[in-house]
Amino acid sequence: MTDLGFLTDVIDSSKVEFGGEDRDRHASDWATEGRVNARPDAVVYPETTEDVSNVVGACDEHGMPVTPYAAGTGLEGNAVPVRGGVSLDTTEMDAVLDVRPDDFQVDVEPGVLGDDVNDEVGRHGLFFPPLPSSGNMSTIGGMIANDAGGMQTVKYGKVGDWVDEVEVVLADGSVVEFGSKAKKSSSGYRMRDLIVGSEGTLGVVTRATLRLRGIPEQIHGGRAVFSTLDDAASAVFDAVRSGVDVAKIELVDAEAAGMANDYLDTDLPDAPMVFVEFHANHGIDYEVDFTRSVFEDHGVERFEVGADDEADELWELRRELGVAIRMSNPSLEPVHAGDIVVPISKYPDAVRRIKELSDEHGVPIPCFGHAGDGNVHYLVLVEKDEEDAMREGVDVYEKIVEHALSVGGTCTGEHGVGLGKQKFMEREHGEAGVDAMRAVKDALDPNGTLNPGKVFDGDDAPRMF
Amino acid sequence: MTDLGFLTDVIDSSKVEFGGEDRDRHASDWATEGRVNARPDAVVYPETTEDVSNVVGACDEHGMPVTPYAAGTGLEGNAVPVRGGVSLDTTEMDAVLDVRPDDFQVDVEPGVLGDDVNDEVGRHGLFFPPLPSSGNMSTIGGMIANDAGGMQTVKYGKVGDWVDEVEVVLADGSVVEFGSKAKKSSSGYRMRDLIVGSEGTLGVVTRATLRLRGIPEQIHGGRAVFSTLDDAASAVFDAVRSGVDVAKIELVDAEAAGMANDYLDTDLPDAPMVFVEFHANHGIDYEVDFTRSVFEDHGVERFEVGADDEADELWELRRELGVAIRMSNPSLEPVHAGDIVVPISKYPDAVRRIKELSDEHGVPIPCFGHAGDGNVHYLVLVEKDEEDAMREGVDVYEKIVEHALSVGGTCTGEHGVGLGKQKFMEREHGEAGVDAMRAVKDALDPNGTLNPGKVFDGDDAPRMF
Repeated sequence: MTDLGFLTDVIDSSKVEFGGEDRDRHASDWATEGRVNARPDAVVYPETTEDVSNVVGACDEHGMPVTPYAAGTGLEGNAVPVRGGVSLDTTEMDAVLDVRPDDFQVDVEPGVLGDDVNDEVGRHGLFFPPLPSSGNMSTIGGMIANDAGGMQTVKYGKVGDWVDEVEVVLADGSVVEFGSKAKKSSSGYRMRDLIVGSEGTLGVVTRATLRLRGIPEQIHGGRAVFSTLDDAASAVFDAVRSGVDVAKIELVDAEAAGMANDYLDTDLPDAPMVFVEFHANHGIDYEVDFTRSVFEDHGVERFEVGADDEADELWELRRELGVAIRMSNPSLEPVHAGDIVVPISKYPDAVRRIKELSDEHGVPIPCFGHAGDGNVHYLVLVEKDEEDAMREGVDVYEKIVEHALSVGGTCTGEHGVGLGKQKFMEREHGEAGVDAMRAVKDALDPNGTLNPGKVFDGDDAPRMF
Repeated sequence: MTDLGFLTDVIDSSKVEFGGEDRDRHASDWATEGRVNARPDAVVYPETTEDVSNVVGACDEHGMPVTPYAAGTGLEGNAVPVRGGVSLDTTEMDAVLDVRPDDFQVDVEPGVLGDDVNDEVGRHGLFFPPLPSSGNMSTIGGMIANDAGGMQTVKYGKVGDWVDEVEVVLADGSVVEFGSKAKKSSSGYRMRDLIVGSEGTLGVVTRATLRLRGIPEQIHGGRAVFSTLDDAASAVFDAVRSGVDVAKIELVDAEAAGMANDYLDTDLPDAPMVFVEFHANHGIDYEVDFTRSVFEDHGVERFEVGADDEADELWELRRELGVAIRMSNPSLEPVHAGDIVVPISKYPDAVRRIKELSDEHGVPIPCFGHAGDGNVHYLVLVEKDEEDAMREGVDVYEKIVEHALSVGGTCTGEHGVGLGKQKFMEREHGEAGVDAMRAVKDALDPNGTLNPGKVFDGDDAPRMF
């Protein structure tokens, strides 16, 4: 039994839990539920930066792993404590500290939900543009840790692009601020950007200054229906290439639409669709009409875009799509959440390749996601509890990643590496590239205290699929 | 005499120069001319990534410093080889390798000039938005090394925001690619962003994939004249706070205008001005009118903005402003190029504080720069060759930096750290923050081969002012 008595020397004992229920709840996340069971030895609920500093510093001294945890909505097992130790649950640190509308900035604690930030800054006519689809359930800390993206990344960029400054507790417990409240700086290394996307392996973010933007005066949204998937994918590529100013442009293939209808009781057409949304302060019709005309070149069958609230239902549906696909047929299970990104010119090809593999192997692979970024979310669905089927599904999943990498793409656009994507790291970055990342890890966390077993291919890391 | 014979074992001897003329030319840059004379022992002109890899790897083995050099337009002594060794001149690697209009990308070598990139991609209707004012003289490699910004950063961001991928030679000579040709990725640490702004101290960029954008259909530009500097600064703040979509918004104070008139023989009004430019694909009048109305709230005296070519002269003048200020009075010299950035709400205060210090100390401090970013370029001008005057000038210069830091700003917005800003690093980032940067440096360049004596406060680094 690991001796964790030192914890209550450095933090109030009311914030430390050794009980089974708390530990069970932190043993998995969305991605690992039922696949990986990695119980921490204790769960700590810090309330201040000082708490985090004290706990991390003491754990570093005692050779005890610390794995930050928040909403548990990760899709790669990023927050699962595969080597035990302390699960550092930041959800008590959920305050919106300071809104500064004049500077388009807000300071928040890491455990605050994305939507709660938007509610708060919305009163000032502002919003945080890059929120992921799970913004109603995910925390800002988790989003920073994975450099999350979302439906509006096509126009506004990723979460990391909207972080001005972070307060971080490093492995030795020291507290630093990286970045600046100034809009730009070239003062030393871009450590803020190194922390973003490092999945809690280099430091624990205890406060973030986020950049905001004025809510657009005009928002129009809706959907376009195509007769073939190839038409839909080519239309997206052509729209992006033509420089349309679109805030969301999402693919939903016929298979995904059918599963949504089954599970969510919607009545989407049995056809490939592109959901779109436009943001502008004036003249929004210009971009809508431009997009329509590009889509017409690709034989769009219906183009229904307007200012009414009907589009809200589409976006609600889009947000639930991943769950709907997982649940629509109880005899199937997904291999793993797919998140490839390819250069936009390769997007139609990537979608085509997935469907070819689907046909060849006789497995359904519904596709959706942030098409304008060249991002495909896909789920290879296989018969539950059939080992051979899972093995074949994994093979198909990996072939899709290989294809993306072969055209200059990435294995993970916004979900991070965690456990699930470790096996692709060397293929994507080369041995020297991964070695360089590892050198940075060793420099900032020499004892391997922070979220060990993640990002890099750890021999002892449990395989998720 | 250092033995550099190994160089010609690893690179063709025609690319290595030991002669005094080449070494003299690489002993200083724009900032250090006449102040620091740091001759390299040899100048190497690589033509390929392999050349760079061979030279860097061999120097690392032989304990020989390598300092990348390009156009020599740095403003902080960033490329000056203060510990001798090899000056690695990348200007022979100046090709535009591949334009991919469909993906809004171009691959370039590091020694290519910014304007040459724009010429090449302009044929496809594209441009590279974040070019600094020195884009006609500076190289892409230098811009990446300093995470340069420019007049259009207010709308489009900095150079680093437009780099998708870099090929880098690390200190041991290994060649890696960081980033991705995909538009987004959260695959491992953001090493690309760590390389950007690291001033050649972590690796040498040998190829970059830059992101491009379509040239706007409409460009309107011109100037606004105010009766007081406070009006001008407050108008800029108010415009930014109101969310105007402006592509350039530059302050030129009356003092700077007067010096431009003296040196460039222009006839600018003897009044504070704001130069503006707008980019749009449609409805440009909306933003122009919006800005005019905000400026009217601050008593703008003249607002002259249009689509004609008159504005071109203003921008040409703006680009030459720094030189004009330096040259207009031969008996004065600047302490050092100022480059503070403050949160935009603190911008009017920062400008006011500078003018107070100017009055208190009786030294002219013309101000200009990228006002919309909260960025002030200022030049504290003192009597030439007067030690006391220089000492007082340095004191004033530092007080301006201190003020910026005290309101959450940065000591260097886009010029990097080099030699000149080392003394502010710990004040801006704290000891733990600088230690973390140093740990990263030691991890990626354990022998201290790459551009030693920069970024961190080196005891042996020559002071520029």
